[in-house]
Amino acid sequence: MGFFPKPTEFFDLFEKAANNILHGARLLDDFVSNHVDLEEKLKKLEDVEHVGDQITHDTIELLNKTFITPIDREDIHSLVSEMDDILDLIYGTANRIVLYKVPAPGVDMKKVVKSLVRAVEEVSKAVPRLRNMKKPEMILAQCIEINRLENEADEALRMAISNLFERETDAIKVIKEKEILETLESATDRCEDVANVLEGIVLKNA
Amino acid sequence: MGFFPKPTEFFDLFEKAANNILHGARLLDDFVSNHVDLEEKLKKLEDVEHVGDQITHDTIELLNKTFITPIDREDIHSLVSEMDDILDLIYGTANRIVLYKVPAPGVDMKKVVKSLVRAVEEVSKAVPRLRNMKKPEMILAQCIEINRLENEADEALRMAISNLFERETDAIKVIKEKEILETLESATDRCEDVANVLEGIVLKNA
Amino acid sequence: MGFFPKPTEFFDLFEKAANNILHGARLLDDFVSNHVDLEEKLKKLEDVEHVGDQITHDTIELLNKTFITPIDREDIHSLVSEMDDILDLIYGTANRIVLYKVPAPGVDMKKVVKSLVRAVEEVSKAVPRLRNMKKPEMILAQCIEINRLENEADEALRMAISNLFERETDAIKVIKEKEILETLESATDRCEDVANVLEGIVLKNA
Repeated sequence: MGFFPKPTEFFDLFEKAANNILHGARLLDDFVSNHVDLEEKLKKLEDVEHVGDQITHDTIELLNKTFITPIDREDIHSLVSEMDDILDLIYGTANRIVLYKVPAPGVDMKKVVKSLVRAVEEVSKAVPRLRNMKKPEMILAQCIEINRLENEADEALRMAISNLFERETDAIKVIKEKEILETLESATDRCEDVANVLEGIVLKNA
Repeated sequence: MGFFPKPTEFFDLFEKAANNILHGARLLDDFVSNHVDLEEKLKKLEDVEHVGDQITHDTIELLNKTFITPIDREDIHSLVSEMDDILDLIYGTANRIVLYKVPAPGVDMKKVVKSLVRAVEEVSKAVPRLRNMKKPEMILAQCIEINRLENEADEALRMAISNLFERETDAIKVIKEKEILETLESATDRCEDVANVLEGIVLKNA
Repeated sequence: MGFFPKPTEFFDLFEKAANNILHGARLLDDFVSNHVDLEEKLKKLEDVEHVGDQITHDTIELLNKTFITPIDREDIHSLVSEMDDILDLIYGTANRIVLYKVPAPGVDMKKVVKSLVRAVEEVSKAVPRLRNMKKPEMILAQCIEINRLENEADEALRMAISNLFERETDAIKVIKEKEILETLESATDRCEDVANVLEGIVLKNA
């Protein structure tokens, strides 16, 4: 009916997922900073995305055969689903850049990517702290920081789009670049969703 | 204070909701495939959407007067809300096609609609299985399939938009068609959200 | 390890948050209706947004040090997060109008703002009713009304965008105005999310 894995197995999977996202975010940073070998880099990002899918799948499977979980089942489920969404959007950004034949990203897009990388870094530092919830202050502080970074990314996005309207008169180009910027911003939004899940877990278990 | 309905009442409502969405998805398929009598077809879809609203409303009411529910109250609530969202977006797609005076949908849009119909079919097969949660494998397998279809729809959308950029130089037309494609994609996203709720229910109750 | 605040403290914070959003929504209404002193008005809205952030932060902190909460911890958390999102989008709308140098909003945009204000009014009336959940009918009726208003806002948005396509031939201007309209619509969507959380709380506790 169910079996008792080591509770650390879940935390191991969370950490694997968080590190994988960070890997993806850094690949994306390289992708927009060094605008060469795009097809090859996109392929790498696709692999990272598949690894993410596998981790999510493994977690759901572990959840399904586990009788007693270290944190609430629905929280485990939300956490891995939300983390998976971040990676989908990271890959989706790079995919769009290639598909839409967008020229080398400008300074504004690079800035939004940097914001995203920093938000993902915080996520990747906060997630492993779930192993020790006796000291919730650290995770909560990081969740506040992720929220702050998300607001910053929002501002960066609005500035980027505003600048885009100033400099670009070709509407089709505006549409393309705007969509890519918004995909990036959605990825940062998902970081905030992960922070919300973490916050919820900590507030419940501390 | 509360009363005890037959537990099957909830499952009956879920099934009604799922079948209604499938009906809506197929009407949309016909809407984009046979681009005639649009006003009339839109009216039919509006009726289906109202039926959906009524089912959602009935479920909430049943929930409010029921003392003990067969699955967690919040899960019942999420499930009907998410299913309702799918239908809103299906109707929203057809509504936009009429409002924006979009010409007959091309092969790409039809493909995205087909992906949506298939995701909705899986939803409509998975939902009735909630009646028997002793065998969770079937539902879980369908949730994975819905996730796969959502990824496929994502890809189809990106290809469709990429093709749109290639063939259409009128930016206003690009904006219109892109919004319709994105509404379709949101509908498939909602199918994935339903799959996530189903997965969560099954993992909790199996 | 934890302490027992008066249960009213949470309800006080919810009410403060709800009133603050209503204040923000009315400032936005003035912002679009009287298109003067925009920078100054935007500054005011930014202050309101910061007040919202502070209330959210205070609620999370109270949650963290409270042992027994009057309603489920995750519901408190969702409620304040969702309310905060409404305010972010209200501010985001005004911010975009200034940044994108959009001319005085037309009748359609004003109409969508009015829908939003009405939805926020309902939210601000429903939230204080959490203090007395013995009579859930009132809150549930308001949730239905918020859902209705959201559908109305959806329709208003689609009409507004359809009109925009009719009257505006400059694609860049279409893109700008469309994004602002969609931000407004997202704010109304968040009102519906709050209604869903309220509905969930009431159905669980009644």
